Amino acid sequence: MKIVVTGAAGFLGRRLIQALLAREQLTDDAGQVQRIEQITAFDVVPLEGINDSRLLVQTGDIADAAQVEKLIQPDTASVFHLAAIVSGQAEQDFELGMRINFDATRALLERIRALGTGARFVMTSSVAVFGGALPTTVDDQQVWAPQSSYGTEKALADLLLADYSRRGFVDGRSLRMPTIVVRPGKPNRAASSFASGIIREPVNGVSAICPVAPETVLWLMSPDRAIENLVRGHELSKAQLSRGRVLNMPGLSITVGAMIDALRRVAGAEVAQRIAYERDPAIERIVNSWPGNFSAAYARELEFTFDEDFDSVIKAFVASNRLSEMSY
Amino acid sequence: MKIVVTGAAGFLGRRLIQALLAREQLTDDAGQVQRIEQITAFDVVPLEGINDSRLLVQTGDIADAAQVEKLIQPDTASVFHLAAIVSGQAEQDFELGMRINFDATRALLERIRALGTGARFVMTSSVAVFGGALPTTVDDQQVWAPQSSYGTEKALADLLLADYSRRGFVDGRSLRMPTIVVRPGKPNRAASSFASGIIREPVNGVSAICPVAPETVLWLMSPDRAIENLVRGHELSKAQLSRGRVLNMPGLSITVGAMIDALRRVAGAEVAQRIAYERDPAIERIVNSWPGNFSAAYARELEFTFDEDFDSVIKAFVASNRLSEMSY
Repeated sequence: MKIVVTGAAGFLGRRLIQALLAREQLTDDAGQVQRIEQITAFDVVPLEGINDSRLLVQTGDIADAAQVEKLIQPDTASVFHLAAIVSGQAEQDFELGMRINFDATRALLERIRALGTGARFVMTSSVAVFGGALPTTVDDQQVWAPQSSYGTEKALADLLLADYSRRGFVDGRSLRMPTIVVRPGKPNRAASSFASGIIREPVNGVSAICPVAPETVLWLMSPDRAIENLVRGHELSKAQLSRGRVLNMPGLSITVGAMIDALRRVAGAEVAQRIAYERDPAIERIVNSWPGNFSAAYARELEFTFDEDFDSVIKAFVASNRLSEMSY
Repeated sequence: MKIVVTGAAGFLGRRLIQALLAREQLTDDAGQVQRIEQITAFDVVPLEGINDSRLLVQTGDIADAAQVEKLIQPDTASVFHLAAIVSGQAEQDFELGMRINFDATRALLERIRALGTGARFVMTSSVAVFGGALPTTVDDQQVWAPQSSYGTEKALADLLLADYSRRGFVDGRSLRMPTIVVRPGKPNRAASSFASGIIREPVNGVSAICPVAPETVLWLMSPDRAIENLVRGHELSKAQLSRGRVLNMPGLSITVGAMIDALRRVAGAEVAQRIAYERDPAIERIVNSWPGNFSAAYARELEFTFDEDFDSVIKAFVASNRLSEMSY
């Protein structure tokens, strides 16, 4: 089978491609296990550093219908759509956010509809679709009330995916991801970027700013669980998804203060002291609009995975961080 | 002030324009009462039969950005956006539904954003955004789960309107309307068309088919209340809308069987006997996915109006029906 991954040069895209190449196979529409023959890795910049004869690296503009037409072919069995403009940037540049987070998703769904293949389509959505007055634990029946353009665009994409799936145009699955922590690399323009920064920077001997109060409750998922869940989202049969195509993922509910306590336990007091609180109202407004805990009952029934404790998340980051240092 | 009404030749559009012309004034952004100088009535077919020097009748394609540019001007203070493809037709013609129910709304919002006027924008949405497993009474926190493309398109438009309003691009108000009963005229391609037909046709001496079971619970609003609520939706200040721009309207919850009982009481047994049950699974699937009762707490607090009983709704229809017969 042939697979397309958008946002392939991003952190999750790269890891997903590595996982798929290692896995070697996926289940198709008919429930049959199929060998992965080709993965097209699409992004604005080329995916680099993975050598594999099954990998085809392409670059382009994912919101350009002509590019999408070339990218998605009659033999494309599955698409993992990860390309996105992060929350902070989508708030600053409204047109860019709408173009990438919504119009590009629509172009991909439209291409599959035009082909008539009903290809499987796994997408990442976000807890940023929620906002306003919220219960302590958000259940699967909670109304969407995005307080950011990013959250709005993800909700728009979720609605489209659900209707295209209901009509049989695509076989869509949208996973509402918690904040992914710990991301490697540099800070980005996501409002949640600090949630990785306050672990990653101190571990790497660098000071970090925490722009929100220690009581702030976050809903987290580690990169390892995110990749497992993307594959799980693909592997579920249509019959298993009878209660809808948009799934609030399970996660770990934890305060920022408890995250820093865990860092102190795992990496020592000296490391944890590299964090300074310096509150940023723009970031706090967005982050505080996101729920800190979800029941995620539907996704739990479907055996999506989650992190049991934050100490293990930090330990996994420290281990993979050492590995990537060694590779340079 | 200058006002634009889309879908102006439709039943609600015409009544709204008559109500606005009679009212002579609306409140502006600053809370000041302003004289209505001009109403542009836009639709695919010309609005006919209203003679008033303040009325400007235009025809065109509401999803065409060039037409929208001409329609919405720097001095357009308020837009009432009623143009829509009804549920049954949007289900049959996916592209047309997306184009009119979503792309046209986006084009209007984008035009106002480009002008930078932040014009007031009152839109009709629908209870068709809800579906799936639902409580007996749906509250304002209920998740959207449309089971039709029409419901999806209305939810997409609601999300856009909310984000454009949050960012100050427009001053939007989306009213989630119950099924409007009794509509005059001919049956249309809305899945809910029968709800008017089972009253209108018998009153006019014509037989009618009821395609759903008598236990089916509907959520209804009379045309008079709908017009009052559209004006109310316009007149509310931004400060009053602090809990969001998308409002589930109050309504009347009643079974189809009780509607027919009311017809028997108001118009007599002979009239009510003109209805025959002949169930249609396609219509039942869509209609049964809509909730039959709402708390509508937010809209009730904001003093939107509703019908107290169905006998009065029928009596109002019979009275206006006689009036319109006399006018020919």
